[in-house]
Amino acid sequence: MQWESIPTKSGQEKVVADKINAGITAPKGFKAAGIHCGIKKSRKDLALIVSEYPATAAAVFTLNKVQAAPVLVCKKHLSESSFFKAIIVNSGNANACTGEQGYVDAFTMAAETASVLGAETEQIFVSSTGVIGETLPMEKIVNGIHKVVQHVDEGEYQSAAEAIMTTDTFSKSYDVTFSINGFEVNIGGIAKGSGMIHPNMATMLGFVTTDAAIEKNVFQKMLKDTVDKTFNRITVDGDTSTNDMVIALANGASGVSVEPNTSAYEVFEEQLYSILKKLAIDIVKDGEGATKLIEITVEGAQTDDDAVKAARTVSLSPLVKTAIHGEDANWGRLLAAVGYSGIEFDPDKFEIEINGTPILKQNYQVTLPIAEANKTLKPKEIKIVLKLNSGSGSATYWTCDFSEEYVKINGSYRT
Amino acid sequence: MQWESIPTKSGQEKVVADKINAGITAPKGFKAAGIHCGIKKSRKDLALIVSEYPATAAAVFTLNKVQAAPVLVCKKHLSESSFFKAIIVNSGNANACTGEQGYVDAFTMAAETASVLGAETEQIFVSSTGVIGETLPMEKIVNGIHKVVQHVDEGEYQSAAEAIMTTDTFSKSYDVTFSINGFEVNIGGIAKGSGMIHPNMATMLGFVTTDAAIEKNVFQKMLKDTVDKTFNRITVDGDTSTNDMVIALANGASGVSVEPNTSAYEVFEEQLYSILKKLAIDIVKDGEGATKLIEITVEGAQTDDDAVKAARTVSLSPLVKTAIHGEDANWGRLLAAVGYSGIEFDPDKFEIEINGTPILKQNYQVTLPIAEANKTLKPKEIKIVLKLNSGSGSATYWTCDFSEEYVKINGSYRT
Repeated sequence: MQWESIPTKSGQEKVVADKINAGITAPKGFKAAGIHCGIKKSRKDLALIVSEYPATAAAVFTLNKVQAAPVLVCKKHLSESSFFKAIIVNSGNANACTGEQGYVDAFTMAAETASVLGAETEQIFVSSTGVIGETLPMEKIVNGIHKVVQHVDEGEYQSAAEAIMTTDTFSKSYDVTFSINGFEVNIGGIAKGSGMIHPNMATMLGFVTTDAAIEKNVFQKMLKDTVDKTFNRITVDGDTSTNDMVIALANGASGVSVEPNTSAYEVFEEQLYSILKKLAIDIVKDGEGATKLIEITVEGAQTDDDAVKAARTVSLSPLVKTAIHGEDANWGRLLAAVGYSGIEFDPDKFEIEINGTPILKQNYQVTLPIAEANKTLKPKEIKIVLKLNSGSGSATYWTCDFSEEYVKINGSYRT
Repeated sequence: MQWESIPTKSGQEKVVADKINAGITAPKGFKAAGIHCGIKKSRKDLALIVSEYPATAAAVFTLNKVQAAPVLVCKKHLSESSFFKAIIVNSGNANACTGEQGYVDAFTMAAETASVLGAETEQIFVSSTGVIGETLPMEKIVNGIHKVVQHVDEGEYQSAAEAIMTTDTFSKSYDVTFSINGFEVNIGGIAKGSGMIHPNMATMLGFVTTDAAIEKNVFQKMLKDTVDKTFNRITVDGDTSTNDMVIALANGASGVSVEPNTSAYEVFEEQLYSILKKLAIDIVKDGEGATKLIEITVEGAQTDDDAVKAARTVSLSPLVKTAIHGEDANWGRLLAAVGYSGIEFDPDKFEIEINGTPILKQNYQVTLPIAEANKTLKPKEIKIVLKLNSGSGSATYWTCDFSEEYVKINGSYRT
């Protein structure tokens, strides 16, 4: 993967993915647009993604007990319809903790979108992100829906990616073209999110399009499995915001169908994984105040589940994240974090590699003077491999370092 | 409780408890001392606490899978002896991740202390805190043991409290005198610890003395119960450092015995709770970069266990802690944190009080303009009550706010 450096608001350098981008309209039969409808002061705040053809859908939603109105409406529609037409998304207001009125408003967004597109209300997904506890400015949104419909186009993938942003410092958009049985298939995706310590507490949204044909239940299983290995690897199961969702639409416009237990399924799932992984890593990179992308791989755990637990605990440890920010190769913090992750392992066998350089070998053998070890943390991308030498379980998480900037941003979100 | 403000290293104000202090030597028959033996550059780094009379003991240890050598030695001695003589503690080096040599060194510390006090090795507890992964400078420590023994005195409680400090910005020491059946009983305690997000990842040590007589198993149960409601309410079960321990000695010098299922037991337990709670709150106040003490009480949960889960999740939320630091009464973050704590509750019934002022009533009714609500977060002590209105379960946690200072301190711990 190629990275480039862009300046952040505070003037610090920040790593950002080099994007390929035809984005969410790369798959045949999809159009999109993003406009400013007036929820935010001047930035884009309303996005529409439309499929020309009836699309099957798959979706995963927040596990938070507090679920925003659009989440409830999407779940209802997902269960009621077999095919779907569009996703309408606003940013700047989450329509969360808004009671009965919030539910009515989310329903109205779907109904209005359905009406202008000539579809059924149940064929529309609704998504919101932004401030919690305030009702939506519905007049602006309804006017916006009538306006955004006029802008939807195959060339408008970028404006849609921008219109779903909140505290994001860059838009996240990828697509991939590949071949199944000699036919061209496309997947596109956009996402928003920039939370840091618990990345998905700041709402994370992901929208995926494909021109393959996939049966709803098959698609649902594949999306869930893939999200578990990507978006859920930058986060903690259960630690979700009120609005998180990932929605995927498959309209069959490529003429290619993906059936379970076929090589087509494997190929498609691998490409879906690559798109979701890139979007997930972009969310980590956009971590509030983040200056380094950190990949934590745990190898040699007794089971994959143990590896997931250990990698997750390490990637959430503020002491690890601040040490890496300070370029301090503090192996004791890495070991202690695995130690309290709740898994069984033998600390005497613990080994650490940072960006390919062994830092610690078994029996606490430090391989480098500390000044040399610290140099392995200089780059903007840090790959840490923790070898437990206790089995064959492995897992990878992505996180970012923890800077003074994070505290500043989150202490004054609304001011 | 009375608080005073002292300047921190960075010049920010910081709340600190007003101490009563005769500390750990308030109970009859206890002496102590703290000296500089040469592990640290110039600050005190070796403490000794001695009982004139044979003392029973109770102890709780870290749940981390990586356990430092002194933890292993203490566990062994606790199981092997009925009565105990002393606790020897060094700071500046944790003797953790030091393999076989570490175990030998911890044993030598106990044996040397036993030798100069005329006791058995198994009657000595050993404790260490500081840098991980380096072996102890044993010559300095052995010389120090011979020296500190000459300083032990009833008046040296404060030097002992200071000698166990690492990143602590103030020493933590309390005592209480009370009456059981007309006789005077004393409890004293000292502690060290100043971690913040996961407070006990930075090692937490606590040492308690009393002149009551309490049978070992009875004392063990009481200490465990009390730690669960104090030190474990500023932390996460299982998220412990390699060296955490709380050790309590009871030497019977008051002539008063504490038997289970008596009013004496209740009185004693309540006083033990008060001491441990004060020490625990001091550790929170000394949180790295902390500027506010935050008490999180959850009321009206379905069970006490649910209340503990919710209070713990809220008190660990970086988004909550940064909002309070920024004096932003962001009720959405409080509600979202309860929402992902894993408990069952009805978000519509959620209510918030900050320092006695209602901020949010049921059905998301905001009671104050945001500027007014933010004012409730001005004080240095913040008491937040979260009312779930779903049952009678309740629990209290203590935490602190999350400042830029924290990141600075933890990014350069060793530099």
